[in-house]
Amino acid sequence: MNDLQEQIVGAKKIIDSKLAEFMENNEPLLNVLQESVNYSLFSGGKRVRPLFCFLVGELFGVPKEKLITTACALEMIHTSSLIMDDLPHMDDGKVRRGKPANHMVFGQDVSALASIGLLTRAYEIVLNDPELPDDKKTKVVSRLARTVGINGLVGGQFVDLKFSNEETDAATLDYIHTYKTASLFASSGVTAAIIGDANDAEISALETYAKNLGFAFQILDDLLDVEGNSEDVGKSLNNDKGGFVTVYGVEKSKHLVQEYTDKALTAIEIFKGKNEKLIVLAHMLLKRKA
Amino acid sequence: MNDLQEQIVGAKKIIDSKLAEFMENNEPLLNVLQESVNYSLFSGGKRVRPLFCFLVGELFGVPKEKLITTACALEMIHTSSLIMDDLPHMDDGKVRRGKPANHMVFGQDVSALASIGLLTRAYEIVLNDPELPDDKKTKVVSRLARTVGINGLVGGQFVDLKFSNEETDAATLDYIHTYKTASLFASSGVTAAIIGDANDAEISALETYAKNLGFAFQILDDLLDVEGNSEDVGKSLNNDKGGFVTVYGVEKSKHLVQEYTDKALTAIEIFKGKNEKLIVLAHMLLKRKA
Repeated sequence: MNDLQEQIVGAKKIIDSKLAEFMENNEPLLNVLQESVNYSLFSGGKRVRPLFCFLVGELFGVPKEKLITTACALEMIHTSSLIMDDLPHMDDGKVRRGKPANHMVFGQDVSALASIGLLTRAYEIVLNDPELPDDKKTKVVSRLARTVGINGLVGGQFVDLKFSNEETDAATLDYIHTYKTASLFASSGVTAAIIGDANDAEISALETYAKNLGFAFQILDDLLDVEGNSEDVGKSLNNDKGGFVTVYGVEKSKHLVQEYTDKALTAIEIFKGKNEKLIVLAHMLLKRKA
Repeated sequence: MNDLQEQIVGAKKIIDSKLAEFMENNEPLLNVLQESVNYSLFSGGKRVRPLFCFLVGELFGVPKEKLITTACALEMIHTSSLIMDDLPHMDDGKVRRGKPANHMVFGQDVSALASIGLLTRAYEIVLNDPELPDDKKTKVVSRLARTVGINGLVGGQFVDLKFSNEETDAATLDYIHTYKTASLFASSGVTAAIIGDANDAEISALETYAKNLGFAFQILDDLLDVEGNSEDVGKSLNNDKGGFVTVYGVEKSKHLVQEYTDKALTAIEIFKGKNEKLIVLAHMLLKRKA
């Protein structure tokens, strides 16, 4: 195991234990709702967004205790969006991380409420984080809300539902994946950068790194949708009509993975001497799938 | 028209115009999503929560420009919760404010996204309100998120869906209406009180006023469900199985309206000399239905 891999294992433990704290429930009437939330939150997620948040924090010398709550919030938002995407009136995913999707176990109604509840809890924990001053809380939660809202995940999901088809054009595809995938990943780094008092150029570099890495990751996902099998991948396949492979074909899509990866790595050259872990992270994320 | 009625007309205008500002959309791909949001946000809501927010602001001498964004956020959260409640996998309401429910026009998928998008925008606008310092933003949004989340509206809706039936007990009924109805109404006053630097006793008095008024209002709603007709009421009726009338019967329910109203009015006696509008508001809200 290399240093980063060891660090990943450690970070995952910290995140899982803190997430469990944030999910304590003292109201018996809500037990099943909480069970539904926990089912998805503790279903073997890789905690990639919290990890990226921690690694960016290191760049700016932010101690982990100032980041842990935000890192948990990012994972909660991510999980909330997966529960939502899998709903029958959305992408109707039946399998997620190798298990029945949330709504298959708890029903569409409970699952929808679990998703909104989890999303809301994400904002709440940051707003009540004793480690952050009010100005940072405001900036971080404002960023998170923008990432989620109409001009974020919600809008990305809308465009995906309504405009993804055999004839999707490149601009629409770009919109969908900017807001459905890349944006929350970018915010995972940017929130840490905000907490670490990064300047605009540094934030912009992290945005570029994350957006391009997010695109590379998504194209690999679409390639798996076409070339992989459901059992290995652990979720329903071929739901992504109108993905990168539809628009660009297999060969060009593979080429784009390389292109986006190169752009991601070029962007973080401004952190030269401190960016090694971000480089390794990029390779790990992309190798996992290939 | 009395003073308060004139003030209500004025407040409604201010709120409607500010809400329209917050709903500007520059992304053509999102037009239909934004239309869905606007359909419900501008469907003749009485803006009771913003009004209550303004009236409490007056108690503490807060100028309206420091409250308007929070007042809009309250209305956005309320509308979001109505869109959500009407969804087929929730209460399956087909009519709202005399018009087809949001999902009947835009479909279940768009409607669900509109609800979450609107909710998220509510937090965003307060976090970006140039009139509020960061500590107030943090407190107000934290309060709003708690009001919405698992221990708020989301939990109330869950308990309503799962435990409302012929045999609902009084404690469960209390839980549902505390979190589904009374809590957001209470937060409409409490957020203004927070902005106005109210002390704990004042906040607690406003909570008591609002909670009891919310209960009185809800019982009248349940009575209409039994005694009214859909056309007059402007929404689907008899969806509220296991409401107050089921638990207490018609006569006792009518008696409870009086009891809760009295409790509400007693609570605000600590604002003697300044509480006249809150007294008139209570009577207006309850008379509207009776």
